[in-house]
Amino acid sequence: MKRVLVNNLIDHMNEKVKISGWIYRIRKLKSITFIVLRDRTGLVQCVAENSIAEKMDLKTESVVSIKGIVKEGKNKLNNFEIEIESIEVINSTIGELPIEVNNKDLNINLDTMLNNRVLSLRHEKISSVFGIQNILVQGFREFLTKEEFTEIFTPKLVSEGAEGGTEVFKVRYFEREAYLAQSPQFYKQMMVGAGFERVFEIAHVYRAEQHNTNRHLNEYISMDFEMGFIEDEREVMDMEERLLKYILSKVKEEGNKYLDILEVKIPEIRGEIPRMKLKDALDILEKEYGKENLDGDLDPEGEKLIYRYAKERLNSDFIFLTHYPRKKRPMYTMPCGELETYSFDLLFRGVEITTGGQRIHNYNELIKNIEYKGLNPENYSSYTCVFKQGMPTHGGLAIGLERLTAQLLGLENVREASLIPRDRTRLTP
Amino acid sequence: MKRVLVNNLIDHMNEKVKISGWIYRIRKLKSITFIVLRDRTGLVQCVAENSIAEKMDLKTESVVSIKGIVKEGKNKLNNFEIEIESIEVINSTIGELPIEVNNKDLNINLDTMLNNRVLSLRHEKISSVFGIQNILVQGFREFLTKEEFTEIFTPKLVSEGAEGGTEVFKVRYFEREAYLAQSPQFYKQMMVGAGFERVFEIAHVYRAEQHNTNRHLNEYISMDFEMGFIEDEREVMDMEERLLKYILSKVKEEGNKYLDILEVKIPEIRGEIPRMKLKDALDILEKEYGKENLDGDLDPEGEKLIYRYAKERLNSDFIFLTHYPRKKRPMYTMPCGELETYSFDLLFRGVEITTGGQRIHNYNELIKNIEYKGLNPENYSSYTCVFKQGMPTHGGLAIGLERLTAQLLGLENVREASLIPRDRTRLTP
Repeated sequence: MKRVLVNNLIDHMNEKVKISGWIYRIRKLKSITFIVLRDRTGLVQCVAENSIAEKMDLKTESVVSIKGIVKEGKNKLNNFEIEIESIEVINSTIGELPIEVNNKDLNINLDTMLNNRVLSLRHEKISSVFGIQNILVQGFREFLTKEEFTEIFTPKLVSEGAEGGTEVFKVRYFEREAYLAQSPQFYKQMMVGAGFERVFEIAHVYRAEQHNTNRHLNEYISMDFEMGFIEDEREVMDMEERLLKYILSKVKEEGNKYLDILEVKIPEIRGEIPRMKLKDALDILEKEYGKENLDGDLDPEGEKLIYRYAKERLNSDFIFLTHYPRKKRPMYTMPCGELETYSFDLLFRGVEITTGGQRIHNYNELIKNIEYKGLNPENYSSYTCVFKQGMPTHGGLAIGLERLTAQLLGLENVREASLIPRDRTRLTP
Repeated sequence: MKRVLVNNLIDHMNEKVKISGWIYRIRKLKSITFIVLRDRTGLVQCVAENSIAEKMDLKTESVVSIKGIVKEGKNKLNNFEIEIESIEVINSTIGELPIEVNNKDLNINLDTMLNNRVLSLRHEKISSVFGIQNILVQGFREFLTKEEFTEIFTPKLVSEGAEGGTEVFKVRYFEREAYLAQSPQFYKQMMVGAGFERVFEIAHVYRAEQHNTNRHLNEYISMDFEMGFIEDEREVMDMEERLLKYILSKVKEEGNKYLDILEVKIPEIRGEIPRMKLKDALDILEKEYGKENLDGDLDPEGEKLIYRYAKERLNSDFIFLTHYPRKKRPMYTMPCGELETYSFDLLFRGVEITTGGQRIHNYNELIKNIEYKGLNPENYSSYTCVFKQGMPTHGGLAIGLERLTAQLLGLENVREASLIPRDRTRLTP
């Protein structure tokens, strides 16, 4: 007998069906037992004579198949229920479950949630986070594919660090040492130069950051794009603005079910996202909020204050900060004068969710800038050599998927937006 | 002035336009110079008075913008050409190019192709490989999304090896040691149990294999799916059969341009893909081809001979081999009797492109099988514990993207199907 999914039962009124899933709840009355069954499409109430139910060792979260008739019957879940004829236990739970997943709210701490990920994900408030995340990913891909970007897959085992920092994981690669890629930066630039012109990648990146904060992961999903033949970094910001509008309206259209469960409202981007030079933002922080001594960058408190400013004065959840100092940006960033760069961050509700900018396309300028950053060009030769072979003007950005998800849904910790997060101390499950 | 793409020029007859791209070819005549420009959409012939062209330092593969009038004029490429008014060199090539990309065939060896990836990818026979690969990826995603599979992203930094082998890359993870995932096996099973029921992932996996063959990569793209509530492994094979039919017809519909360039014909799957027990395949090899001493598995020569058999006798490019021996399959594979398993490989033109099967869902059986394989269950506790929490019957498979691409397009080496491959000796570019 073929399994029928819960959301298709309505088409089988008064028929005998087989349904399969997890036992969500059991309630035993004097002569009958109510069993609520959950599959990937929903919940359904089933009713068994105790003569049937008592023969079985039924436990919540056990996997069962139930055969029975779909009968009219109004209950909290549906306008029908299943009159059980037989139950088969496919896989019984063993021992006590560490989490009760059939409460309205889980009320567990983050570690318990993550240590018991398979159970916690069965709760609709948890799985809805990933329902939304999937729409974000699909929206990113759809929009960029329509804009003629090509999807690429580039190596995460690399011999050169993209960001020039020390926060890289080392891998024993046979007789040699390799690193885990901190970003697909070099490769997406190379693929622009290879003739694809416009490329995107959605893949893991790795940061060996020592600190354990609520907004850092050591392995996270980076949604990157890079585009050739641009005038300057403003074209990249324009593209991101349209991309975000597309993604957010897709979430509103397709994510209703999840948004209701999560009790979340999606912000609107009206017109243009405000753009402000970082320098001017620092001035505002000093003048408006008395925040001083920011050395050419924002700390988390500064980001929050700028969000407050953007929200209260500019009526926006988002703000682009532009023209970051040269000394704060990686060597591939296009300089703007002696001190600044054609670069930007996008802050969303006080957290940076994007870093982007125009890149250097001229070989000699690139070598000079690598030296300016105190690095040795010889260490980057397999990257720099392509700039002798016809590299167009280009720029791009990266959006951290977990951060975007967390900010959009108001999650306190970015780990909640990762199915199986990796941080300073967490390598399991 | 806004850039017009080459494939849109037809809409701008007799207008002044700006086009941008790479100089594909330069041919100087007595009073005029022909310049063929390439952008991501195609090639166009442009004509300049020598008075304009001679002022500039024009080199093949330099990046330029050209302004001029679109005029009627039949040539090998189009029914129009550009009458050049001005040329701007955006980025000139420096020195000799290691490859000439404007020949009909590249005629370079594999190392030269891969060492100069940005240049070699500009050749249409090379970039077409990835045009097809993109359709394969999109087809995989589209089909499974329609079948209600959920896309997942699972960690590649892991504390336990999925396959129980020794061929893992070690990563220094702060004070500890971690490994690069050989497959998303444990996590996709967990996500089935987490209630998604059906999941897929397209991501890198890592194999620290010592050997350097034409069909192995140390980092490759694995297209995985896993599905719950199955009867046995045959449902997984059924799903793959439909998936492959979908993907191949999508390649035929959308990949014509690339298939013509590559001079490739896509095979048809008529009816069912033949299914044969591995045992029977080994018998055939012995009886028909005198091939003996295969210890319960096929070597590359055996795979080729079975392909010959499938092609000549069964009229199929594909063949499923089933019921692999327990001793050859990982500990999570569902045993079938004492010696065999509910598992399969899919061979395509003599190369294994898929491994799959039903998995054990019962906790006690899993522990017993881990011990049977000579492994210590304690090393897998964060995986095995979820089998106490309600795990449905399930099974799945993995398709190696580069292998599928290479076999489909008749590439000699799987490295040709990786944008930036990693092998025993290659860590750059």
